[in-house]
Amino acid sequence: MRILILGGDGYLGWPTAMHLSARGHDVHVADNYLRRRAHAEAGTESLTLIGETLPARTQAWHELTGHWIGTTEGDLCEWSVVEPLFRDFQPEAIIHYGEMPSAPYSFIDREHAVFTQYNNVVATLNVLWAMREHTPDAHLVKLGTMGEYGTPDIDIEEGYIEIHHNGRSDRLPFPKLPGSFYHCSKVHDSTNIHLACRIWGLRATDLNQGVVYGIETQETKFDPRLATRFDYDEVFGTALNRFCLQAVIGHPLTVYGKGGQTRGYLNIVDTLQCVELATLNPAKPGQFRVFNQFTEQFSINELAALVQRAGVDYGLDVAINHVENPRVEAEEHYYNARHSALLDLGLSPHLLSETLVESMFATIQENRDRVITKAIMPRTTWRPTARIGERVGD
Amino acid sequence: MRILILGGDGYLGWPTAMHLSARGHDVHVADNYLRRRAHAEAGTESLTLIGETLPARTQAWHELTGHWIGTTEGDLCEWSVVEPLFRDFQPEAIIHYGEMPSAPYSFIDREHAVFTQYNNVVATLNVLWAMREHTPDAHLVKLGTMGEYGTPDIDIEEGYIEIHHNGRSDRLPFPKLPGSFYHCSKVHDSTNIHLACRIWGLRATDLNQGVVYGIETQETKFDPRLATRFDYDEVFGTALNRFCLQAVIGHPLTVYGKGGQTRGYLNIVDTLQCVELATLNPAKPGQFRVFNQFTEQFSINELAALVQRAGVDYGLDVAINHVENPRVEAEEHYYNARHSALLDLGLSPHLLSETLVESMFATIQENRDRVITKAIMPRTTWRPTARIGERVGD
Repeated sequence: MRILILGGDGYLGWPTAMHLSARGHDVHVADNYLRRRAHAEAGTESLTLIGETLPARTQAWHELTGHWIGTTEGDLCEWSVVEPLFRDFQPEAIIHYGEMPSAPYSFIDREHAVFTQYNNVVATLNVLWAMREHTPDAHLVKLGTMGEYGTPDIDIEEGYIEIHHNGRSDRLPFPKLPGSFYHCSKVHDSTNIHLACRIWGLRATDLNQGVVYGIETQETKFDPRLATRFDYDEVFGTALNRFCLQAVIGHPLTVYGKGGQTRGYLNIVDTLQCVELATLNPAKPGQFRVFNQFTEQFSINELAALVQRAGVDYGLDVAINHVENPRVEAEEHYYNARHSALLDLGLSPHLLSETLVESMFATIQENRDRVITKAIMPRTTWRPTARIGERVGD
Repeated sequence: MRILILGGDGYLGWPTAMHLSARGHDVHVADNYLRRRAHAEAGTESLTLIGETLPARTQAWHELTGHWIGTTEGDLCEWSVVEPLFRDFQPEAIIHYGEMPSAPYSFIDREHAVFTQYNNVVATLNVLWAMREHTPDAHLVKLGTMGEYGTPDIDIEEGYIEIHHNGRSDRLPFPKLPGSFYHCSKVHDSTNIHLACRIWGLRATDLNQGVVYGIETQETKFDPRLATRFDYDEVFGTALNRFCLQAVIGHPLTVYGKGGQTRGYLNIVDTLQCVELATLNPAKPGQFRVFNQFTEQFSINELAALVQRAGVDYGLDVAINHVENPRVEAEEHYYNARHSALLDLGLSPHLLSETLVESMFATIQENRDRVITKAIMPRTTWRPTARIGERVGD
């Protein structure tokens, strides 16, 4: 299958490209190195050393496996980049990771909030118009986030909910309560893609992904030149990845507030499995399909305790520190999200275990001299700094 | 009260400014003439002759009434325009009409779709950040649209719905099914404003407005220099306004498809009443309040029949023409939307009547020599033109 991967230089995009290339698909990746530039701006970096450019990474992949992955270095907000990608490559599936993915980034200041929404919304609109013009039968596999739903006090369904009201009923989009300008941008994308499916008959799968953890996949392990990035800073690092790194370097785990925040999680190897399953089993023309992409729910306190227990076995003395929560979010809440659609398609989950955490410790240990410690404590706050505790929550 | 009106050069913004200025408020208006430029680009124009610039219009208002309205000519997407507006004027209320308001405009091509979302989303984000920085206790009165809801098969509530699901319940945002990239931009705004209320404690009222009709308000009638614009073209004209103009010039009424499309409608004088009621009765800190702003529901066929009947009394021979629907929308559907919140605040509706339609005929007749007939038939289609009837609806 001809598969276009947008954001193919990223934590998930690069391993996905190798995973699908290894399985015989014709893969083309596009990226504008936005994440690398955001790190350079902040003085932070991936823990793992990654290939200098996308062409260098695909060249290494070719030398090691014989497979070719095509590359485009360019910005999806530019039609002059997007249009030829669709016209010339004629993808049958588009896997769209190509967005700014960080909630804290979207709260750095007004410019970063505006940029996050501009970048994500415009890139996705360009993709939809390119599909309409050049590949109307292609299937868009779009990475969304479970954070689009927020933490409602009812069970979270997969994208839609049957609502019974005043004696009538309809199956409608599940209400969203996104908790950051970044999460809002993903909700905007979902709204736009759903429209394009309804009016143009495009086909799309929105993967509302949980928090991904892990460093390695079958392909990244094959050679150091194929490593994927691993972020542990307060802006781009995700909860379990951050905790594992903190444990290795002897930094107390940074639990935000009470730590009762519960979310869906999945192993990076399951991300590849889910994306592949969605791609090989496309949505129907006109269908906007939504899958919740995670395998297990955990609270932050549960993750911290797991890392602490794994640390004991591994010989690490892990402390837990409840720091002031930089975010505005419920710290104790109901959370129960359905995630059966991908299981029904054949997903075989790799569940979280102390063994997995210990293998992450080992990989982090190998790269320990690259850790930039100033990037660990949270600095970006949701509230205006002068007003913390003053009026929010009135 | 110090009231900032964004989009103060528009069909509703300008009459709102005069209405509130006449009642003793300190009013400042901002506009970048986007609507005027879009008309110039399309070769169309307002039926009524309107003042050359915003300062010229406010100068006339001052000469006639003694009241001053402040003006800013500038783009809300520019922080250098927005920031001083809030810092220097310190508004207590912000009435935000300042957006590209047309569904067909957002379907002209990719550039217009992207521009519509960029313009509306970025302008509103700038307003939210300016409120956070300079006027955190001010009240945002934002014009949304009933079109955000689409046409669900259940009763439409005012912004929120109590959902009972698997033995639990929560009051959540009412699910949205916007039918154009323009309508999507309004949903994006609602999502962003709701977030800003939750995390920063801002106060906002989202007015999901129905389709507005009418040419005159108490203040526009006062002097020809105070007239507001009246659009009748396929891009910016709204249903009843278009039909009235078509009736006067002897053009068959352009009913799209079967004509069963049902929406909420209100008289322009009720828009001013509603906006004033929302402004004088602000939301609480942290509250994102949603009102459905319309007074009556009609199908397109009902409106066409009303205009035809009024035409008989007025001596016009009005034909009705069911043209191919340029939009993708349900042409026969359930529709029942709650609209009690503004009535509870004291709204006293001016309901639609043949008398009102006849008075619109008279005003249109006075300006008949200004009509540009090429702008009347629909040219902008939701579907790719080469593919109408081919695959949408599979």
